[in-house]
Amino acid sequence: MSDGAERGGTSGPAYGVLDETSETESRVAMTPDIVTRLVRSGVTCLVESGAGRGAHHDDADYEAAGATVLPRSEVLARADALGFVSRPDDDVLDALRPGTWVIGLLGSLTDESYVGRLAAKGVTAVAVERLPRRLSAAQSMDEMTSQNSVMGYKSVLVAADAYGSFLPMMTTAAGTVRPAKVLVLGAGIAGLQAIGTARRLGAVVTAYDVRPASKAEVESLGAKFLDLGLDLSRGQDRGGYARELTAEEQAAQQAAVDRQAAGFDIVITTAKVPGRRPPVLLTTRGVSGMRRGSVIIDCAASDLGGNVEGSEVGTRVTDNGVTLIGAPYLASGVPDTASALLSRNLADVLVHFLRDGILTVVPDDELDDALVVSGAPAGGSAGVEADADRASHEKQGK
Amino acid sequence: MSDGAERGGTSGPAYGVLDETSETESRVAMTPDIVTRLVRSGVTCLVESGAGRGAHHDDADYEAAGATVLPRSEVLARADALGFVSRPDDDVLDALRPGTWVIGLLGSLTDESYVGRLAAKGVTAVAVERLPRRLSAAQSMDEMTSQNSVMGYKSVLVAADAYGSFLPMMTTAAGTVRPAKVLVLGAGIAGLQAIGTARRLGAVVTAYDVRPASKAEVESLGAKFLDLGLDLSRGQDRGGYARELTAEEQAAQQAAVDRQAAGFDIVITTAKVPGRRPPVLLTTRGVSGMRRGSVIIDCAASDLGGNVEGSEVGTRVTDNGVTLIGAPYLASGVPDTASALLSRNLADVLVHFLRDGILTVVPDDELDDALVVSGAPAGGSAGVEADADRASHEKQGK
Repeated sequence: MSDGAERGGTSGPAYGVLDETSETESRVAMTPDIVTRLVRSGVTCLVESGAGRGAHHDDADYEAAGATVLPRSEVLARADALGFVSRPDDDVLDALRPGTWVIGLLGSLTDESYVGRLAAKGVTAVAVERLPRRLSAAQSMDEMTSQNSVMGYKSVLVAADAYGSFLPMMTTAAGTVRPAKVLVLGAGIAGLQAIGTARRLGAVVTAYDVRPASKAEVESLGAKFLDLGLDLSRGQDRGGYARELTAEEQAAQQAAVDRQAAGFDIVITTAKVPGRRPPVLLTTRGVSGMRRGSVIIDCAASDLGGNVEGSEVGTRVTDNGVTLIGAPYLASGVPDTASALLSRNLADVLVHFLRDGILTVVPDDELDDALVVSGAPAGGSAGVEADADRASHEKQGK
Repeated sequence: MSDGAERGGTSGPAYGVLDETSETESRVAMTPDIVTRLVRSGVTCLVESGAGRGAHHDDADYEAAGATVLPRSEVLARADALGFVSRPDDDVLDALRPGTWVIGLLGSLTDESYVGRLAAKGVTAVAVERLPRRLSAAQSMDEMTSQNSVMGYKSVLVAADAYGSFLPMMTTAAGTVRPAKVLVLGAGIAGLQAIGTARRLGAVVTAYDVRPASKAEVESLGAKFLDLGLDLSRGQDRGGYARELTAEEQAAQQAAVDRQAAGFDIVITTAKVPGRRPPVLLTTRGVSGMRRGSVIIDCAASDLGGNVEGSEVGTRVTDNGVTLIGAPYLASGVPDTASALLSRNLADVLVHFLRDGILTVVPDDELDDALVVSGAPAGGSAGVEADADRASHEKQGK
């Protein structure tokens, strides 16, 4: 099942990545340091030529680490498993060989028809968005945590760059510059990283989240917790993500946030609910109450809308002089770090399924059950039957 | 001499600013809070419509603060004194009325012909670049310090935004991200601010300057001083600026910096010598030794060259994958803070010359002697003669 024998006697599967770079994507799903680690585990690493250029790794770096650099068609033809930054588009889907493993964020929680297409291709699909992130074995595979962390860091850099004043307080002979007041809405991984980064830069930070646990987390980072004067308790689902609020709760929250936003120079919104339309946290009324020169970064901006009413992907200055930046691509904006963490996450998922050197799905394994949404294991273990059943189940939603 | 009587009985001079905003300039020479202060001192404030828009102040803000918003021609016709972000261009020079005071960075140390033109117009030119910055009375007028401080802050934000990895060390479940190694070349006001800002963001910072005093300053900010193994002592002139190095010293310094640059992820160069071609601190050889993905910010980049050989204004990626950013407009990149400090600096210069409500040059005053490079005082004091002499002296270099 692998042609890895040509490289130093490895006999494990061939794991490949494609060049996914585009105008909005600079990340790569496998960095050279991960190649080194995987080769040691007996994995043959295949990299499409140019795949790493956005993250500052050229083909020679990959070859030096022990990977084989190939044209796209060869990677697709020879890989037993492929890791992805973004789920395969139609062209890649068409080119996948039956039996290939596909590992990445596949959008399986909301797009059942896509899962059906993967199943119809006979692909083994490992959907990282289904990772039971509370399991300690899953921590190092947690791509959403790693990428959201990068997003939170970058959101503050983008805000600081767009903001016309200093973030830190500065006392000079020509007067004292007051520190910027930053409001972070959504205190998950991205929000906490944003809080930490804004605090590093000397801003005075306030944050808010519907999850009751977040108040202590926010305060432990030295930020204030925004008091909305509302009871929005129980805002956390079993997976640790924010649950969706009721319409009434959302309205009350929006009104309260709108009122308070006027007191801040920078607002960063990070409330993504996986696979769902992001909740609106700041309405047009809230934006219009902010002063000229203030900056909003909406990390949840998308074609479906964002956390800020009226936000679009890109930069817009409102009539009242607020710079509103819809920024869904922030993780890609720190491509070296984001790629390094993502590559490690995906490699650890791969290695989890590598049993006696063969990619295998094991029934009743908690991770396997959660992650595999389609297809038969390449190794032909007892998992075949169980997962064929699962794939057929998933397919019903098509 | 002033029409200020129309505004609340002020009888002092009229001080105006023009709209200097352009693609590369967002600052304004007078902010609304400075208007408030000047009006209290009896000064009538005239602002060209739209002058503050780059720094997020609209005309209504100025009017609310007590200024009169006018078209450009009216400001030029009615102002007794004008403050400038950048020295007047030909069009403005032509429009200046004899007897008008011009306050700003005028480039008088290197461009004597320009001073001659100011003198020929009968303008009283106050050249802030000549400020004796060691005088305590001059501290709050020190535009170069305030703007270089902003430049140093912004240089780190631009570097962090262009750099593909985190600046801080980050320990995650998917591995540890090492902190960025930043080298700051030139540890004047801009360099010290860059050191402080990069340290805030968690980078490991090293710095270098030819002035012997800088080692202690660098170390007091928690940065390392780069050991070049060279003796470049006495690199400081009486004004506190770096002196120009000899050709031999420059060559030795360049070679040593070139060797060491390879060990850094980010290099920020800030060595501007007022009015002279900036010294080259990093040659093409040094740049080519840096690794793919590293970032250089050359704050001294200009049409005359910069601190980095081959740097141009704007962003360029070298053949070996180094992002080289020539960034002469960084102070304008934080326009609100830069304008607030600059406005205070210029206003304090103006108020220094305001004697019994009249703009007056006093002979033998240390600040007056240093700053006034052309023209007769508007108030007709004893300073007229002395300064006419001075202007004629300056004019010889034309």
